[in-house]
Amino acid sequence: MKFVSFRHGGADRFGVFKKDAIVPLSEDADLKSLLAAGPAALQAAEKEAAQSTGPIALAHVELLPPIPNPGTIWCAGMNTHSHYDEAREHMKLHDKPAKPILFIRSTATLVGSGRNLEKPKLDPYFDYEGEIAIVIGAHVRNVAVDQAMACIAGYACFNDASARAYQLSSNQITAGKNAWRSGGFGPCLVTPDEVDLASMTMVCRLNGTEMQRMKIDDLIFGFAELVSFISEFTWLVPGDVIVTGSPAGIGALRKPPVLLKAGDTVEVEVSGVGTLVNGVQNQP
Amino acid sequence: MKFVSFRHGGADRFGVFKKDAIVPLSEDADLKSLLAAGPAALQAAEKEAAQSTGPIALAHVELLPPIPNPGTIWCAGMNTHSHYDEAREHMKLHDKPAKPILFIRSTATLVGSGRNLEKPKLDPYFDYEGEIAIVIGAHVRNVAVDQAMACIAGYACFNDASARAYQLSSNQITAGKNAWRSGGFGPCLVTPDEVDLASMTMVCRLNGTEMQRMKIDDLIFGFAELVSFISEFTWLVPGDVIVTGSPAGIGALRKPPVLLKAGDTVEVEVSGVGTLVNGVQNQP
Repeated sequence: MKFVSFRHGGADRFGVFKKDAIVPLSEDADLKSLLAAGPAALQAAEKEAAQSTGPIALAHVELLPPIPNPGTIWCAGMNTHSHYDEAREHMKLHDKPAKPILFIRSTATLVGSGRNLEKPKLDPYFDYEGEIAIVIGAHVRNVAVDQAMACIAGYACFNDASARAYQLSSNQITAGKNAWRSGGFGPCLVTPDEVDLASMTMVCRLNGTEMQRMKIDDLIFGFAELVSFISEFTWLVPGDVIVTGSPAGIGALRKPPVLLKAGDTVEVEVSGVGTLVNGVQNQP
Repeated sequence: MKFVSFRHGGADRFGVFKKDAIVPLSEDADLKSLLAAGPAALQAAEKEAAQSTGPIALAHVELLPPIPNPGTIWCAGMNTHSHYDEAREHMKLHDKPAKPILFIRSTATLVGSGRNLEKPKLDPYFDYEGEIAIVIGAHVRNVAVDQAMACIAGYACFNDASARAYQLSSNQITAGKNAWRSGGFGPCLVTPDEVDLASMTMVCRLNGTEMQRMKIDDLIFGFAELVSFISEFTWLVPGDVIVTGSPAGIGALRKPPVLLKAGDTVEVEVSGVGTLVNGVQNQP
């Protein structure tokens, strides 16, 4: 199933994504609470959607981030072999990391598909980072790696857009990963039964030109390792998001560098999941 | 005024703190929404509290973090001259930072005064860090330093307890700053009119022994500079929290090191604000 969260007629709703239409589900809940209610609730939602007679045309809604209100958005930095290798010389990096490099993205930074990212006024180096996001569906602690995939409720596309001057303004990258309206997340949440991990591919395009491409074996710490590591030191709960890492091809390390500017369009496509589309605007 | 959030009779409430009692306020709101409603709402709350005849004894409530649901908890790392100097040799640090070093603490890590912090099972190096937290009361962007103090709704004590092995497991300290139940926050939120910034002092005690002491001129980036810097790249909104930095005296850099263990009690006292008290328990 493909779930979406959306705004329609002034109300924030969620529903099931069917081609060019959305079948709305309960008005009294959100997708995070549906995930927290467990597999039986998901199956009931599927049945409810199958019987619905009132789909809403996609053109009539504003897509929200599939989980508009995650508890925590965990992000893995420098987590692909290809990106680590391209950054090695520039960043004076040595051995590949022994443990995942984590930072947190504030939920306040999220924007859904179809909405603009915003370049901060005081940072000229605004950049895209196409990634695959996993959404947690269980309440878990100390998950073994071989049990971790069962905690994943679904997948989405993510643009971990980065304000590079802020990112490099200290030894902690958090500021540069938390510019207002810099986290593209969407278009939908796709359940694990609909994706093929063996062939799963993420492609990021800028104004139609391919800039990044990866399969998940490019990840240094894979989905299961990330879930397991984070659950060592804290609980993961339904609706938590893990943004798993971007591959080679970011704008800042290109020669010459490629910077995002107002009017650009960035697409992040994940096979079996969909395509996240975000324009770019300047901070007003 | 001193505001508290608390649990009583199974319900989460907020109210005004008066000596050993709490005067509960509206059941239909929380302290974050009161801050968002602005100064007139705060004055109305003060009037409501003055007329109330039904205070609840402090002994009968469980204190929650004063803002149990912050949008974002911004934390400043290595932000005191004293702590920077004590860490300089050990961490191979060079010049003092040109910009604030920021990380985010997940709201899921918060515990109120009177509740236990939790030492993660897989990290032997659990440590205290006494700090002053500021709570934002305005919806602001690009705040000039000389306008920033007006954005502060109040002050609280914070224990930025740190799982040092996770903190040093990569070049980003986020994991070690986000152990479950590691963020002591409380006991109350005190409005700026009740504090004297010139004499404001933070003292952190472990089992009654003073371990840290600072005045706010120890901060490398002061309250106003932190508000101004964060508001450059994102909006600050009512209820956002900035944890401003810990002084010299952390356990990990003592000789021999001092580690938190089950049964310990950590107090963080800020003059004019109150004392945050947290025990320590092992992860079950």
